Amino acid sequence: MDIAYDGAGFSGWARQPSRRTVCGVLEEALERVLRRPVRLTVAGRTDAGVHASGQVAHADLPADTDPDHLVFRLSRALPADVRVTAARVVPAAFDARFGALRRHYAYRVTDAAWRADPLRRGFVVAWPRPLSLDALTAASTQLLGEHDFVAFCKRREGATTIRELQRLEWAREDDELIAYVSADAFCHSMVRSLMGALLAVGEGRKPADWPASMLTATTRPSEITVAPAHGLTLIGVDYPADADLAARAELTRNVRTR
Amino acid sequence: MDIAYDGAGFSGWARQPSRRTVCGVLEEALERVLRRPVRLTVAGRTDAGVHASGQVAHADLPADTDPDHLVFRLSRALPADVRVTAARVVPAAFDARFGALRRHYAYRVTDAAWRADPLRRGFVVAWPRPLSLDALTAASTQLLGEHDFVAFCKRREGATTIRELQRLEWAREDDELIAYVSADAFCHSMVRSLMGALLAVGEGRKPADWPASMLTATTRPSEITVAPAHGLTLIGVDYPADADLAARAELTRNVRTR
Repeated sequence: MDIAYDGAGFSGWARQPSRRTVCGVLEEALERVLRRPVRLTVAGRTDAGVHASGQVAHADLPADTDPDHLVFRLSRALPADVRVTAARVVPAAFDARFGALRRHYAYRVTDAAWRADPLRRGFVVAWPRPLSLDALTAASTQLLGEHDFVAFCKRREGATTIRELQRLEWAREDDELIAYVSADAFCHSMVRSLMGALLAVGEGRKPADWPASMLTATTRPSEITVAPAHGLTLIGVDYPADADLAARAELTRNVRTR
Repeated sequence: MDIAYDGAGFSGWARQPSRRTVCGVLEEALERVLRRPVRLTVAGRTDAGVHASGQVAHADLPADTDPDHLVFRLSRALPADVRVTAARVVPAAFDARFGALRRHYAYRVTDAAWRADPLRRGFVVAWPRPLSLDALTAASTQLLGEHDFVAFCKRREGATTIRELQRLEWAREDDELIAYVSADAFCHSMVRSLMGALLAVGEGRKPADWPASMLTATTRPSEITVAPAHGLTLIGVDYPADADLAARAELTRNVRTR
């Protein structure tokens, strides 16, 4: 399932008791429509306030479930701030979380003197000082590649902090600066921590090589702040082609039966 | 002043006692910043719920008012759902309302099975039935030109309903259908009434020549419904060049002194 949501009204993706979460609202709607328990596995467990236009989740459903009909019924069962925009049957080997090859995020910020466009203020952070696109770009380039991003990660038991940052590019569109950030996976609060460090460079408070110099840290430095959640949107997730998944499943079966 | 606002939180532009209106909020902020009474004259008095990205208003202010400093101070004095995005000194002959040559609106609607994108749902109307771009275009073309649009106007004392509809074009962008609508001026609720009639054609309930056939009406037909306000955005207003304004003012002065 392809999923989009406005993060403002949710305490993030992950289910929490007595909180409104994206996973909780989606599973409830699916259970109401399908009249059976449903558990979702998701590509990116976004934090409170973070949006998604290209989130992906999978669930094990009865073989006779019609994906288009499910999208239609969910459009009525779901609240307006979360939508299932597409659904399809995938090979049994598909896993929305562990099968994801790459996650893509966008972070939006504006340094306009008049602050954020009222029609976009829920998705764009108004930065109070002018930002240099050149400085942001220079600092970003130095972060690319495989590194231990522990300096940019909030601790989670047992999770690795070694990630391959594959894209970190800035573009100016009218009054917005947009960072496009892609990696094989992200540790907790990594994109927003990278943004916090880069925006300090963009506004001239830190030199361009400062964020990359943090890559040698072995713990999270207190100087690295987390940029506001509402600027962040999960825009897409890459997976292997179905044919590759099927071949991989075949291989696994051969290995098992040999 | 160029002005943008999210119409959701306002009872329209025009001041009303004990209602939150765009004009009321702006005048109060200007008065707080300038410490003097301010009255705004606006290009388009938008209805409750209608948005603007390119609204224009003028006010008579002291000659020493610095426009850039005013924009900066207003960015702090105004709530986040309305912004003054630019301000400049204009010739004395400039009038935001009577000097406007053309108003430009956009109306956004989606016929996606999954309804409106959660990140755009405040600005896009979710239409419950599929819409034909060809039918919308065919019906729209027949409405162009100077007509008495009384069938598409809510009555206002003494206001003319003869208008020149200069542009009415539809474009599909991803899952959205966007109508671009331009005229010298619009009577009350005209864009939303045109949209109500056109969407009936778009969904196949009325033939393509039906909206234009209403142009012969002498009163407003009950069949013409008003499309929802939140799909509508005032995107721009055209004015004569400053040089033309100055020349016109000179002419008026010569006539007066002759």
